[in-house]
Amino acid sequence: MFAHTPKPPYYAVIFTSLKIEEDRGYSAMSEKMVTLVQKQEGFLGFESARENLGITVSYWRDETSILAWKAVLAHKQAQERGKDTWYSNYKIRIAKVERDYEK
Amino acid sequence: MFAHTPKPPYYAVIFTSLKIEEDRGYSAMSEKMVTLVQKQEGFLGFESARENLGITVSYWRDETSILAWKAVLAHKQAQERGKDTWYSNYKIRIAKVERDYEK
Repeated sequence: MFAHTPKPPYYAVIFTSLKIEEDRGYSAMSEKMVTLVQKQEGFLGFESARENLGITVSYWRDETSILAWKAVLAHKQAQERGKDTWYSNYKIRIAKVERDYEK
Repeated sequence: MFAHTPKPPYYAVIFTSLKIEEDRGYSAMSEKMVTLVQKQEGFLGFESARENLGITVSYWRDETSILAWKAVLAHKQAQERGKDTWYSNYKIRIAKVERDYEK
């Protein structure tokens, strides 16, 4: 469940969201995206939790990889549905991981 | 629930953890830390969610503010108890937020 990321530097995309209660196709699309993203060049892994607020952090080798994933057609369609249907609010932050440590 | 962060750049501390099931003083300490951190110079806000994996992202003006908070005595004691008692695993990533956007 922890993403096995390499030695920094690498990138993190912090996606914070509030979802509507109804599913409306979200679960199926979410599974599809999880499968699809694994095939992306530069994808390093992700971590996710939702209570009321949802937080998903995905990790990437570099910014080019992030932009390439953003432009994938099926993902663009998912982004559109997310904006129009599933999320009442979201915020996306792109950050460069400079150092890390763990227990 | 969304942190109201300023225009980038600023810093994010991504704290991913697995907790033991028993509380063992965690909830009380967690509340105390939430109160205490608000008083820290350079603290910008935080977002948190736990399912099984817990993710807390705190936001900071700069690295100096992050290091100052890490060195606060009561927080150091909380870090020790976290390491010894509450968390079976954790990973901390320090990242510089370069851009953000939202719905």
